[in-house]
Amino acid sequence: MSHPSLLPSGEASSKVSPLLQSADNDQRITLAHGSGGKTMRELIQNVLVPAFDNSILEALEDQATIPLGELLKYGDRLVFTTDSYVVDPLFFPGGNIGELAVNGTVNDLAVSGARPLFLSCGLVMEEGLSLKTLTHIVESMKQAADRAGVTIVTGDTKVVERGSADKLFINTTGIGVIREGVSIASTKAQWGDAIITNGCIGDHGVAILLARNDMALESTVQSDTQPLHDLVSCMLKVCPDIHCLRDVTRGGLGTVLNELASASNVGMYVKESHLPIRESVRGACEILGLDPLYLANEGKIVAVVPSEKAHELIEAMRQHPMGQGSAIIGTVKESPAGTVMLSTTLGGTRIVDALVGDQLPRIC
Amino acid sequence: MSHPSLLPSGEASSKVSPLLQSADNDQRITLAHGSGGKTMRELIQNVLVPAFDNSILEALEDQATIPLGELLKYGDRLVFTTDSYVVDPLFFPGGNIGELAVNGTVNDLAVSGARPLFLSCGLVMEEGLSLKTLTHIVESMKQAADRAGVTIVTGDTKVVERGSADKLFINTTGIGVIREGVSIASTKAQWGDAIITNGCIGDHGVAILLARNDMALESTVQSDTQPLHDLVSCMLKVCPDIHCLRDVTRGGLGTVLNELASASNVGMYVKESHLPIRESVRGACEILGLDPLYLANEGKIVAVVPSEKAHELIEAMRQHPMGQGSAIIGTVKESPAGTVMLSTTLGGTRIVDALVGDQLPRIC
Repeated sequence: MSHPSLLPSGEASSKVSPLLQSADNDQRITLAHGSGGKTMRELIQNVLVPAFDNSILEALEDQATIPLGELLKYGDRLVFTTDSYVVDPLFFPGGNIGELAVNGTVNDLAVSGARPLFLSCGLVMEEGLSLKTLTHIVESMKQAADRAGVTIVTGDTKVVERGSADKLFINTTGIGVIREGVSIASTKAQWGDAIITNGCIGDHGVAILLARNDMALESTVQSDTQPLHDLVSCMLKVCPDIHCLRDVTRGGLGTVLNELASASNVGMYVKESHLPIRESVRGACEILGLDPLYLANEGKIVAVVPSEKAHELIEAMRQHPMGQGSAIIGTVKESPAGTVMLSTTLGGTRIVDALVGDQLPRIC
Repeated sequence: MSHPSLLPSGEASSKVSPLLQSADNDQRITLAHGSGGKTMRELIQNVLVPAFDNSILEALEDQATIPLGELLKYGDRLVFTTDSYVVDPLFFPGGNIGELAVNGTVNDLAVSGARPLFLSCGLVMEEGLSLKTLTHIVESMKQAADRAGVTIVTGDTKVVERGSADKLFINTTGIGVIREGVSIASTKAQWGDAIITNGCIGDHGVAILLARNDMALESTVQSDTQPLHDLVSCMLKVCPDIHCLRDVTRGGLGTVLNELASASNVGMYVKESHLPIRESVRGACEILGLDPLYLANEGKIVAVVPSEKAHELIEAMRQHPMGQGSAIIGTVKESPAGTVMLSTTLGGTRIVDALVGDQLPRIC
């Protein structure tokens, strides 16, 4: 796979290290890397294929082929989801756009109860992007894919002129399979159900905000980007009848709960005192005038489950590395239908609307 | 589905007309349309869901669910392919980015022999994009999807600040199913095979180039963007043993033939006099110093087939609306392996390399 123009070293015994070696120089992405011609082929063969490292991609066809028989081993329904990632900056405390692009799409599959299996990767690069940066990011994608048990089997690269995009946008589209009997939907929240989450909210939003150069604040808050499929799998073992499950990303917990309340036509009551929020996140929100209920997360779910299963489920989730901060944060009532209510620490109750406007652009 | 903030008219009995009505005003995409909150939800519910119009998308979950049993009706292998579209300008003679984004991905599925079934749609929009433009484009996507028999079942919208992207980029990722027995691969070209195409090359490249404002040339050349699944299906009926099949997009015929020659380790001989090229395309190429062999196409394929089937196949293709210009353009030989040779109209023979550099950025 090694090629002199991108990989100056001939010592390519490992499939990963030569990429780092090639990244030591100051090569930049040019328009030719998106041309469909030789230069693009070199980028694919010397950077992307070795990074993603799997036989389906190595065939270098324009599409990946997967026997349906393989998919049937995992269940009876295919799930299909897409997300484009435009996060700014590309690197932030706790992760980078590549890791985010894998985990985010894995999580959109996972919250359907599916086992995530395959991803596509569409890169839109700005002319002038450093090859070192790209290499680092695609290697992060591979590491995240390995961690999540998914394979990046097909891809596309486009390059636009300097100034026509901001460095790098990544689309990942994922497919997974749901096993027989699992049926999770936004419409299934019922009166009496418990509302639970797997840990502190707002970390990703604050980490991104503080990573931007225009903030003078310093903080140790890291993005919570992580794949949640294994936690969900563990939850389904304890409680096969999870009613609703969503990953809490853009729009934050407040928006996701509104969507569930509306889809299920129920009232959702959340106790502010039960919401897990780091002191550092709370502090940043106070200084910056942000509401943690609307901050993005990249490793958090909210689940609506039968109340009789809630405590057992929380115990099981707390045993899982991605669920140590799990908590019951509220309950579902009949009314006011389609509304989220917050019991505040001061003793009052207020309506929590879905996010209006945009708290923070390009968060993911 | 109608909502006052995007759809001022309440007369929304048809699912499509209100979009055109809403598009009469001068609304623009704001960062809030990518926030994950209320404004984004309105865009999805009032523009995207009505335009794409299907029950899977209407569920408004973060992923589409498709029974594997449905897929098994069409064959035994899933195909999965992704493409991002960054074409400049968004509208060009013969099509627009939306139509291109559907046809392009449909064609990447079709050339595997698959029946294209489902698409995802990831939009990256620049703040300030006109809602009228977006509406027009997503309606074109729906029309193209209907024409190709595919359904856009899941999507994502992101918005970046003014200047951080150029108006609109679209990722479409597609899934389809290959029926039992069909086996097409870049590695299968054999000595003696015929090389065929379905019509004139270079139309899309010239149409885009001339649509850009910096060219003073006028021309009637239109993009050839069209879905090729039905033509391929017709070809497979006549010749179930198609060896290689590729859509001829970025990099042009010259590059695709090089990829096939290299993957199959054969020599490919093409007769310049047999290449179907419009006079207007030939003329534009002469004036602009472009080689039609490297111009992009969006409705053309190249197939490598057993020579004994070639004439019957060409006859059948010419009966199809998308194959009227079909022709045998060359033959496969044993050597020089991995090389494409062109017999020129002047009587000489020259090597055709894969595209080096970039003839025309943002062609698709």
